[in-house]
Amino acid sequence: MQTPFDTVILNADVATASDRYRADIGIRGGCIAAIGAGIGPGRETIDARGRLVTPGGVDAHCHLDQPMGDGSRMADDFITGTRSAACGGTTTVIPFAAQSRGQSLQAAVDDYHRRADGKAAIDYAFHLIVADPTPSVLREELPRLVAEGCSSFKVYMTYDDLKLNDRQVLDLLAVARREGAMVMVHAENADCIAWLTEQMLDAGLTAPRYHAHARPMLVEREATHRAIALAELADVPILIVHVSGREAVEQIRQAQGMGLKVYGETCPQYLFLTAEHLEQEGFEGAKCICSPPPRDRANQEVIWRGLDNGTFQLLSSDHAPFAFAGPHGKQAHGGDASFDRIPNGIPGLETRMPLLMSHGVMDGRIDIHQFVALTATNAARIYGLFPRKGTLAIGSDADLVIWDLGQPRTIRNEQLHHAVDYTPYEGIEVKAWPAVTLSRGVVVWQDGRYLGREGHGQFLRCDRPAPAQVRGRGYRGPLWQA
Amino acid sequence: MQTPFDTVILNADVATASDRYRADIGIRGGCIAAIGAGIGPGRETIDARGRLVTPGGVDAHCHLDQPMGDGSRMADDFITGTRSAACGGTTTVIPFAAQSRGQSLQAAVDDYHRRADGKAAIDYAFHLIVADPTPSVLREELPRLVAEGCSSFKVYMTYDDLKLNDRQVLDLLAVARREGAMVMVHAENADCIAWLTEQMLDAGLTAPRYHAHARPMLVEREATHRAIALAELADVPILIVHVSGREAVEQIRQAQGMGLKVYGETCPQYLFLTAEHLEQEGFEGAKCICSPPPRDRANQEVIWRGLDNGTFQLLSSDHAPFAFAGPHGKQAHGGDASFDRIPNGIPGLETRMPLLMSHGVMDGRIDIHQFVALTATNAARIYGLFPRKGTLAIGSDADLVIWDLGQPRTIRNEQLHHAVDYTPYEGIEVKAWPAVTLSRGVVVWQDGRYLGREGHGQFLRCDRPAPAQVRGRGYRGPLWQA
Amino acid sequence: MQTPFDTVILNADVATASDRYRADIGIRGGCIAAIGAGIGPGRETIDARGRLVTPGGVDAHCHLDQPMGDGSRMADDFITGTRSAACGGTTTVIPFAAQSRGQSLQAAVDDYHRRADGKAAIDYAFHLIVADPTPSVLREELPRLVAEGCSSFKVYMTYDDLKLNDRQVLDLLAVARREGAMVMVHAENADCIAWLTEQMLDAGLTAPRYHAHARPMLVEREATHRAIALAELADVPILIVHVSGREAVEQIRQAQGMGLKVYGETCPQYLFLTAEHLEQEGFEGAKCICSPPPRDRANQEVIWRGLDNGTFQLLSSDHAPFAFAGPHGKQAHGGDASFDRIPNGIPGLETRMPLLMSHGVMDGRIDIHQFVALTATNAARIYGLFPRKGTLAIGSDADLVIWDLGQPRTIRNEQLHHAVDYTPYEGIEVKAWPAVTLSRGVVVWQDGRYLGREGHGQFLRCDRPAPAQVRGRGYRGPLWQA
Amino acid sequence: MQTPFDTVILNADVATASDRYRADIGIRGGCIAAIGAGIGPGRETIDARGRLVTPGGVDAHCHLDQPMGDGSRMADDFITGTRSAACGGTTTVIPFAAQSRGQSLQAAVDDYHRRADGKAAIDYAFHLIVADPTPSVLREELPRLVAEGCSSFKVYMTYDDLKLNDRQVLDLLAVARREGAMVMVHAENADCIAWLTEQMLDAGLTAPRYHAHARPMLVEREATHRAIALAELADVPILIVHVSGREAVEQIRQAQGMGLKVYGETCPQYLFLTAEHLEQEGFEGAKCICSPPPRDRANQEVIWRGLDNGTFQLLSSDHAPFAFAGPHGKQAHGGDASFDRIPNGIPGLETRMPLLMSHGVMDGRIDIHQFVALTATNAARIYGLFPRKGTLAIGSDADLVIWDLGQPRTIRNEQLHHAVDYTPYEGIEVKAWPAVTLSRGVVVWQDGRYLGREGHGQFLRCDRPAPAQVRGRGYRGPLWQA
Repeated sequence: MQTPFDTVILNADVATASDRYRADIGIRGGCIAAIGAGIGPGRETIDARGRLVTPGGVDAHCHLDQPMGDGSRMADDFITGTRSAACGGTTTVIPFAAQSRGQSLQAAVDDYHRRADGKAAIDYAFHLIVADPTPSVLREELPRLVAEGCSSFKVYMTYDDLKLNDRQVLDLLAVARREGAMVMVHAENADCIAWLTEQMLDAGLTAPRYHAHARPMLVEREATHRAIALAELADVPILIVHVSGREAVEQIRQAQGMGLKVYGETCPQYLFLTAEHLEQEGFEGAKCICSPPPRDRANQEVIWRGLDNGTFQLLSSDHAPFAFAGPHGKQAHGGDASFDRIPNGIPGLETRMPLLMSHGVMDGRIDIHQFVALTATNAARIYGLFPRKGTLAIGSDADLVIWDLGQPRTIRNEQLHHAVDYTPYEGIEVKAWPAVTLSRGVVVWQDGRYLGREGHGQFLRCDRPAPAQVRGRGYRGPLWQA
Repeated sequence: MQTPFDTVILNADVATASDRYRADIGIRGGCIAAIGAGIGPGRETIDARGRLVTPGGVDAHCHLDQPMGDGSRMADDFITGTRSAACGGTTTVIPFAAQSRGQSLQAAVDDYHRRADGKAAIDYAFHLIVADPTPSVLREELPRLVAEGCSSFKVYMTYDDLKLNDRQVLDLLAVARREGAMVMVHAENADCIAWLTEQMLDAGLTAPRYHAHARPMLVEREATHRAIALAELADVPILIVHVSGREAVEQIRQAQGMGLKVYGETCPQYLFLTAEHLEQEGFEGAKCICSPPPRDRANQEVIWRGLDNGTFQLLSSDHAPFAFAGPHGKQAHGGDASFDRIPNGIPGLETRMPLLMSHGVMDGRIDIHQFVALTATNAARIYGLFPRKGTLAIGSDADLVIWDLGQPRTIRNEQLHHAVDYTPYEGIEVKAWPAVTLSRGVVVWQDGRYLGREGHGQFLRCDRPAPAQVRGRGYRGPLWQA
Repeated sequence: MQTPFDTVILNADVATASDRYRADIGIRGGCIAAIGAGIGPGRETIDARGRLVTPGGVDAHCHLDQPMGDGSRMADDFITGTRSAACGGTTTVIPFAAQSRGQSLQAAVDDYHRRADGKAAIDYAFHLIVADPTPSVLREELPRLVAEGCSSFKVYMTYDDLKLNDRQVLDLLAVARREGAMVMVHAENADCIAWLTEQMLDAGLTAPRYHAHARPMLVEREATHRAIALAELADVPILIVHVSGREAVEQIRQAQGMGLKVYGETCPQYLFLTAEHLEQEGFEGAKCICSPPPRDRANQEVIWRGLDNGTFQLLSSDHAPFAFAGPHGKQAHGGDASFDRIPNGIPGLETRMPLLMSHGVMDGRIDIHQFVALTATNAARIYGLFPRKGTLAIGSDADLVIWDLGQPRTIRNEQLHHAVDYTPYEGIEVKAWPAVTLSRGVVVWQDGRYLGREGHGQFLRCDRPAPAQVRGRGYRGPLWQA
Repeated sequence: MQTPFDTVILNADVATASDRYRADIGIRGGCIAAIGAGIGPGRETIDARGRLVTPGGVDAHCHLDQPMGDGSRMADDFITGTRSAACGGTTTVIPFAAQSRGQSLQAAVDDYHRRADGKAAIDYAFHLIVADPTPSVLREELPRLVAEGCSSFKVYMTYDDLKLNDRQVLDLLAVARREGAMVMVHAENADCIAWLTEQMLDAGLTAPRYHAHARPMLVEREATHRAIALAELADVPILIVHVSGREAVEQIRQAQGMGLKVYGETCPQYLFLTAEHLEQEGFEGAKCICSPPPRDRANQEVIWRGLDNGTFQLLSSDHAPFAFAGPHGKQAHGGDASFDRIPNGIPGLETRMPLLMSHGVMDGRIDIHQFVALTATNAARIYGLFPRKGTLAIGSDADLVIWDLGQPRTIRNEQLHHAVDYTPYEGIEVKAWPAVTLSRGVVVWQDGRYLGREGHGQFLRCDRPAPAQVRGRGYRGPLWQA
């Protein structure tokens, strides 16, 4: 108490996943050291003037500088990606160290560290994408990598170069069970998509809009059901990422009702876009191509409902930054390539938190506590970063956002800080934006100016995820009875 | 009216899928020619003495003399198989012409005709098992074979030598849609079974009982959901065979509620056996190994309920006749082979109808009309044999059963007429058995004596199945909108 | 066989709930005596010329000459009502003997016999409306009336002068269980309707359209769930009449899935009308006021689906014939009375069968067997008139329809034979109409001419309903365990 | 910072509904003033020695000194009830000011204030039981009482002297909607219970065990569905109290999935007791008579699951303290009265938190955050006491518990502090008990000694409940569209 704080934030209107109070926040050594009324002096002072202060966002699903095998290249690296995140109130990102087939996972992780080192402006952890679960990956690399802080694996049920079959998924789930890791699943049925795509191309239906028709809701529902069944069999939690609509929501919700530990993530594209966005003139629709595709208004409503009633734990961006113009992004295969050759993904790191604050909290669809839980706390908890990240409590990193609320602004790509030449949310009105973002006590964004520094961001080792009650609700066979 | 009937059945208490009445039945040329009170003389007369008369059974799922690739051999050929069927009141069987990989479908059908020709005592049709859907199979053979009377395809989602992947299933469903054929699915997830089996064998869990543990309910549920999703995508009916319990029933029922044309079949093993039958001493449990495995009493109850409330359209035997003793059946790989090397299947052609009449109708679980629908009429209708088979109406083949009801007897294998050395229903009491069976007007079973004749049975060409309203409830994409 | 038939119908293309065949039909003594090819001569001959012949319809839900307590009066008595039915292919009606409070049931039945005697052109039975279940009604009258052929009771959960509370419903269900009777339920929550109505009237919302807003779907869903729960508690079947849409369908279907004996009925108004029909100019909307009200197109689709997938057993008319003009019908309380003072009900006896044949069978939504089951066979079976009525089989009454199919016509009230001055189906196209209707072998409608005779119709005693398996799936308490 | 805190709790291992951290807690003026590491001196110091510290419990469903109309009398008044609560870690209680028919609500509230004034050792608020919703209650008293801090109404669907009909419930829901109040519902169908009870008594089934048979699960399910439907119609949130098992859980969960604001509460009796507890010898079973009754082990499991997956927001005690012996409690009507004359209710204020901490958190069924949410935070939020109560944050009342974990003890009534002569949890092992309880900064329980003081507890005015998004998911009729 004798020594002053490094920084004190005065008059904060603090909201966490469970609390709301007025207080000063004392920061020391990058962490929250004290919270209270008149807690004492700081070497620096930021007067929040009664403004809302929330934990900095944890964007648990984003892609940065991820090597692509098809001639496309991501527009954002760790410099521009973390810059963009910080300007939008996100203080932790968890992109993916992606294994190529034939490559060792360790090599993928090493490579990814090289891409991140010295560049990130905010802290980051790595999910692992396992595309080649060889015996050595399963028995040696994964246990070691989990121990070293990469405790979440992503599994693809689609995409030719990434997809695993059910047997491989089970093997990974078994490793996750043994090591206490979390498995994330991209749930779309690869065969259905391939079959539909072939038929569409045969019929000359190649425009961007047909991307949505090649991946109808039932294709996602099927894979969601299957992924849940595999996790139930392996008796281990699972997390379904980027859920797009009602049929998948029903599968998840039913599993949760049965007592299975099934987590759900959704993204702004399923709240703010529809398949009609893919139907724009010419090649414009390509800007909104992502997988699963956005659905329709009725499905948007179901997704909003799922954010409110606890079906979803996470709102992530699934930021997958491909430029629209130029030879490395959406036009990698020419400006009028058929839909199946257009890189999948849209940018969204910077807009995620303002969109949800504005259209979720301020429009009355969710409360402020649910906002914090969905954008920060739950991600930290599920991926083993809690309580260091994801909340605003004693001992936590001083990652926080002071909000500027109520002032309407229109999203324009020219005002964003990523390296992508468009945003799918162009023209959408928001009434909220971060006024100040702090990363471990350091101001990285203030009053419209980016103040971050390359290399400030640190690699975060993830613990085993939080859920104590990981086991015991799934299948009970003779192998599990011991 | 002037010429006498070939045969008249007097004083019949007739029950069909919708009707119940007392009448004489006049048969001419193997067909029902007239029904009424005092319709006139016949060259032969059978006095039914007020006994119940129902249409002869159509067993739409049975295996006879089917070539196996693994050293096992089926105990029943068309002679013993159709004999056994006739003695149990079944007058039509639909076994499977099974393609091996690399073989043309036509070759499989030709081979199967050779196995049947001149041997069957009752009429028969063929389902096709498609194990290798090559382009020529899809584009040439299947359309031709459908036109020639083989209008149902069976798809396996498990068994290494038979299973198709989702893409192949979709291709077949598309052919079925175009040609108006019916697709039957054996729904179990192959990868799950392989994964579990490997782990069990690794753990030394090799006894017959572990067969059930290697194929838990969720493995069937998952494949059922997937098969339905594929059919929904292709916008075509589908039939899930040998459904074993609640979780699969729920999937089917939900799809039916959504308006999808999903048909369900179950079998006596899911009404009368449980997994405990696999737990008998020593190798005895192998006698009850079939797939999916029998579940438990609660699941039996759900299956009974599904017979009553319309979830199921068919009760078939899935007769798969492997001897218990000897080198070609259950002990093909030695008398204590691990569970995964024991041929799957149990005999049941002869016991199907008496079991359901006794424990279904006479015990009050279903009514007599539902009995006829489940054992005869629906199968004929779904597989394109109606109205020639499956009912008792003017112009139909005179296939019928005069029942002996109320006299308790105990099922003993020594009294059955198949060539298998056991029945899994040994010792079960029944209160019903056919007194007389007629096939196209000819008595083939009477008062405990088999009177059938090899070669009496004819090959039946199946029409396209009945459902007029085949299309229009599934997925509506741009390819289907035209 | 020596004596000729009274009538022979030649060359019929017969369809029943399960069969389809070509045959001649021999009628003797008003009953079907023989069916077959060339069965012999008749004193009279009708050549069906290969036309479709089905069992005559059983309209199990209609109101004729039912005394009203509010100044309104039904336009159809037994003369005009049964005439109208016959012209539309219906050969049996089951209207309601309605008890008033304070009246004995026997008095209501006696009165209703007086209204019917000597007037009906086709056969009829009575349901009982129990509005005052006094101890003597429960203990004496109902058992006696069931024994005498009135074996179905209707219960109202709404309408001030008819509604019973849950306790009274349970008492009736207990009687039904003991006596083997069937309970029909009008399921709408009276309190909800009263509360909504009061608020609407207070707000000046009095036009006919507000009838639909005062009885939203959830009001029907709630009462449906409650009725099912009461029947589950009493462990007895129940039949939910005039189901209007999805939410009620889901309740019924779920109960059926659980193994409860819950039957469902729907009506043409829920297939062909929507709430928009109540929104017509001025008072016109009153023509379509009935309860529950028609919903919207999505709900129509769910009702069609329920006819196809077995959720519904019955399609009835709920014919409730109030004139539009004049002082006794829709305008009983003045030509612009508020919606709550307009008599509820629409005419539909004559149009029921043609509408379903045309838009159901010929448009491919249901098959011909399901048509027969829904319009005739199931009603006969559920209400204890089977096999005398509802089918076309040896010994059954010769009630049948020869159809004129494929010739489009437009429904016009001026061509109908009821005494109501409008039809809600005015202007709807149909492609099917009865060419000939026979009641017990007598032609009552032929080629556009009504040939019926007052007094030809007989009162039918209903047996206890058919379901053998009435009990045993509901609540199992200590009172039921014995 | 200059002035010392009144009290500092050192070395706390703090857990809230969202956070977990180590810190000192500074208390000033009965509130939390600062939280942090080394926050400064306090006039008093409590060293938590690294022990778990949680917010004090809010028991939102308990009955104290509530006037009974039937000769029974509650054993606990505000002195013994709040004493017992404090010793079990609860620092806020919300008992019921219960209106009798004919009484004004204000009179009931005034009377209840007199019973509480100067007696409570911890803070308390009042729910209102509305048994007589007269126009003046609806239009005048309720709006005024809500404004004055009684913002939750309890509705009974059973009990003759309390039950409201659906119309009355709707009227109350409409008031709740207008005034922003919360409606709690005791959901059991009165008529079903009365009917069953009458039949059981007629059959001589009078022992305590028949209490459970007179209120089977479906009776609760029906009322739950109905209550939800009424709230959906009125478009207002609702809270179903003391949910006992699967069938009611399914109704609630389905409504939540549809986006309705339906809250759920359960109680320890549904986790730790079963209907077998009512089957004890002689009259002993009466000790466990409460409504709804405890069910079976399978239902317990469903309730545990609902605590984990978010179906339930609240775990309350429903403390209803009737002595077993003597003329005022369970034996009020004699020691062998029939089950329907035994006062309903069991004590549980003191055991609620230890039971859930031990068998929920320490046994791995729920995590510590969910524990805090279920026992404190959610209740405070739903009933308008947040953030003053229910959490441990700056500005909140310093109501907290320091836990003694891991030391097994057996629940014995002789060690509890209520005035009831038994506990239904006698003999159950727990591994957790409060070491210290603070109420507004004052120690009321420490190391096994009760240190509370009559009159320390204050009456709490409840705000309108928290949910911002109260409206907009229910029924959308013309009255709601404005």
